[in-house]
Amino acid sequence: MSMRVGTLAIIGVGLIGGSFALSLKRHGLVDKVTGIGRGEANIRRALDLGVIDHAEKSIARAVAAADLVLLAVPVMQIETVLQEVSSGYHEGLLVSDVGSTKQDFVACAKRVLPAAALATTVPGHPIAGAELTGVDAATDHLFEGRNVVLTPMPESDPRAVDNIAALWGGCGARVSRMPADRHDEIFASISHLPHVLAFALVNAMAQRDDAAERFRFAGAGFRDFTRIAASSAEMWRDICVANRDNVVKQIDLFAHELWTMREAIRRGDAAQVEKSFATARAARQRLLPAHRSKSD
Amino acid sequence: MSMRVGTLAIIGVGLIGGSFALSLKRHGLVDKVTGIGRGEANIRRALDLGVIDHAEKSIARAVAAADLVLLAVPVMQIETVLQEVSSGYHEGLLVSDVGSTKQDFVACAKRVLPAAALATTVPGHPIAGAELTGVDAATDHLFEGRNVVLTPMPESDPRAVDNIAALWGGCGARVSRMPADRHDEIFASISHLPHVLAFALVNAMAQRDDAAERFRFAGAGFRDFTRIAASSAEMWRDICVANRDNVVKQIDLFAHELWTMREAIRRGDAAQVEKSFATARAARQRLLPAHRSKSD
Repeated sequence: MSMRVGTLAIIGVGLIGGSFALSLKRHGLVDKVTGIGRGEANIRRALDLGVIDHAEKSIARAVAAADLVLLAVPVMQIETVLQEVSSGYHEGLLVSDVGSTKQDFVACAKRVLPAAALATTVPGHPIAGAELTGVDAATDHLFEGRNVVLTPMPESDPRAVDNIAALWGGCGARVSRMPADRHDEIFASISHLPHVLAFALVNAMAQRDDAAERFRFAGAGFRDFTRIAASSAEMWRDICVANRDNVVKQIDLFAHELWTMREAIRRGDAAQVEKSFATARAARQRLLPAHRSKSD
Repeated sequence: MSMRVGTLAIIGVGLIGGSFALSLKRHGLVDKVTGIGRGEANIRRALDLGVIDHAEKSIARAVAAADLVLLAVPVMQIETVLQEVSSGYHEGLLVSDVGSTKQDFVACAKRVLPAAALATTVPGHPIAGAELTGVDAATDHLFEGRNVVLTPMPESDPRAVDNIAALWGGCGARVSRMPADRHDEIFASISHLPHVLAFALVNAMAQRDDAAERFRFAGAGFRDFTRIAASSAEMWRDICVANRDNVVKQIDLFAHELWTMREAIRRGDAAQVEKSFATARAARQRLLPAHRSKSD
């Protein structure tokens, strides 16, 4: 499968949007990149770095001249941006995004885009780079070995999906496809829940009068465990609220397991505690092989 | 404060015991190290590596010839080992350990050791190296910049405490002192609880029929978050059972915070969710400064 984009319009030129542009350029998969963003300094920086070739203030105008538009903006801006994309829509325009939740994007696209646009709209979620932000952190190899999940809609034209898949594949990503509701359910368990747990753990600790002394004794384990609590509060607010039914369900499944462990510990049931810990240890070793950590 | 040990007897020559011996040797703080362990191959390896100078099968005999005996064995073996230490006890013998929970060691020492021995018994907990095990992983710099907590008993002679503190300080560690109950309460929150959460999260996930597919999409965040679930099930069983009152209390404090977050998410209360996440993020950045990560 080979696919080459004439003009790519990126709305939101940060780490993800910028890295997509650089990766496509490196592999000769794009002719021209137009950047649209609200921060003028950031857009100038993107031009200086060669991430984009051209800056545009009007989304509608940029879209009108583009073959593919990629939305890489916070979840809360999707509706407004899609409205402007509609204004510039023309037949054959590919529309994609990089949001961490997909049912909300699908619902918004159906509400806002012209019906004809849905055939060439392919929601996507690259799993990469939550730790850094901004165009300065963008690289041409961010997606190598990373997962990218596409969640085609029933309306999506399979050729449009193949084309977007080919672009991410060309950037070195491992591309999967699944329905948006399945995506949101899986990521609630594997990503959203751990973030909620890390935020909750740090908060439970930070409320104590002697929090400073406690944190002073935190070892590597606590540091690893709470690293994701350093993530953007706004971004995770948006994700948890957008995907709240799934997130609440995952919290409840986790809380049930935690309660079972608590009871075994309270009873001093060493055999049950060990069995439970050993099961977890074996599952992590079996399902999260160490040799894959290079691609983290 | 300077302190030099004539003969050190190490019971359990693994990562921690071995690294203590190597670190003291490197800094010229010990004349001779005797190793006692149940695995013959391991003791031979410790001799080959120069971690110990002499191997001994009888704890009583080794202790009789030692100035300091360090217990570096699993929690479950402490009682048996202390009984043998009693058999070799002589006036002035320093006794210390490296266990992750301290009230149980204190209770056991009071039950098993001769009353006179308590004055020179100094329970300790070096916070280092949970990821690796065995004498082959021992190094002469494991404790540099690491925390070591000593939990003197009311019976402990301050000079004995100073001497043990000086040895750990000589190995480059940051030595703190606090009562055993305070230690167990702090580490239940900062260490034991996170381990329980990580084990519970992996278990909650692993029970699903589609666990393999879920884990396939786990990113760096999930990997970091669950790294401590790769820890020894036996060791963490012992810790959680020995410290169960504190661990249950910490689970309950955490569960309360998690429930508050769950309710805010369920209501779609974006302002409350963001506030809660932002508080956690700020606390982690303030209380767990990035520049300390070198010493992890």
